[in-house]
Amino acid sequence: MKRNLGSVNALYPSLTTIIGAVVEGRPNFLTVAHVGIMNHGQPQYLSFGLNKAHYTNAGILEHREFSVCLPGEDLVEKTDYVGLVSGKKTDKSRVFELFRGQLEHAPLIQGCPVCMECRLAQVVDFKTHDVFIGEIVATHAEESVLRPDGTIDIGRVRPLLFDMASTTYWSLGAAVAPCWSVGKGLKGERRGKAQGG
Amino acid sequence: MKRNLGSVNALYPSLTTIIGAVVEGRPNFLTVAHVGIMNHGQPQYLSFGLNKAHYTNAGILEHREFSVCLPGEDLVEKTDYVGLVSGKKTDKSRVFELFRGQLEHAPLIQGCPVCMECRLAQVVDFKTHDVFIGEIVATHAEESVLRPDGTIDIGRVRPLLFDMASTTYWSLGAAVAPCWSVGKGLKGERRGKAQGG
Repeated sequence: MKRNLGSVNALYPSLTTIIGAVVEGRPNFLTVAHVGIMNHGQPQYLSFGLNKAHYTNAGILEHREFSVCLPGEDLVEKTDYVGLVSGKKTDKSRVFELFRGQLEHAPLIQGCPVCMECRLAQVVDFKTHDVFIGEIVATHAEESVLRPDGTIDIGRVRPLLFDMASTTYWSLGAAVAPCWSVGKGLKGERRGKAQGG
Repeated sequence: MKRNLGSVNALYPSLTTIIGAVVEGRPNFLTVAHVGIMNHGQPQYLSFGLNKAHYTNAGILEHREFSVCLPGEDLVEKTDYVGLVSGKKTDKSRVFELFRGQLEHAPLIQGCPVCMECRLAQVVDFKTHDVFIGEIVATHAEESVLRPDGTIDIGRVRPLLFDMASTTYWSLGAAVAPCWSVGKGLKGERRGKAQGG
């Protein structure tokens, strides 16, 4: 039995990220848990909407560069902190130890196991929100979260998964099943049914 | 020590959804694990990019309506199956038991604990991909996944979390910490430091 909740956004959990930009000459960070994947391919694009009231927007628009870092569970307090206080009133440039990649205005967080630096590709105006579309220029990952084949082992990243209804950060659980594989059994079954019917 | 992996999309895990649309007069379903949240507010918008080669695009463009359903762990095989086979060759209209909400061309899946019906608001042309932006019209949730206050209990939804590197569906783990709360302790601490320095 289902209940109609109205027009509720139920796309949770979502991956918690920290967006970095240079605002008024200083690195600034903001917790954002709604970064979208725009395509699969090269160039690789991602997107996120930021209410226009945020301090960070001007910095991204000025330098057309930003970073997207993935904090692990060990960074939950600092991650929450940079989502609680605005750069307008608080200097957040020293909350994290930083490093630089290829872009000058995409401050990267040493303590995050995975960091992406992005170049702004497009801005979609959404009345209350700027939707920023960025091209991923480079992705930096800790050796300790890489598998022997050089891909990221998400089980070692220990990402923070955000849920709005419970306003809670959740952890990643166990693997359930292999993708593009576990459903293969239904291929034959359904073909059989079709042939039968 | 970090390694530069090149321009890799590392935004995982992402929530696994099933997009539904009416294509050539028949309900069709497609697994999509990169649905973005565009804003917070009303109207509430979401977005996802679909390679233009997909069968579903034409149906969404024709009727300007679609659904986004969240499968639980128990539906992993069927979820994977509708991501494996194309509607071009396979009739996927009978894979799930369906129900209808307010929109005529947004087929909803009874077996999914949470289903959203959406009206197409905008299409962003991304060369290889159509990026569909939809307005959420209504969200239907099973009574069994609702908390007493009527919000969705994600722990009971048991969502499937997709990871590209391991091509695996993962489960949701335990709660880590309360959001907009666990970082409050740093407010005073950092203020103290600033005053000190």
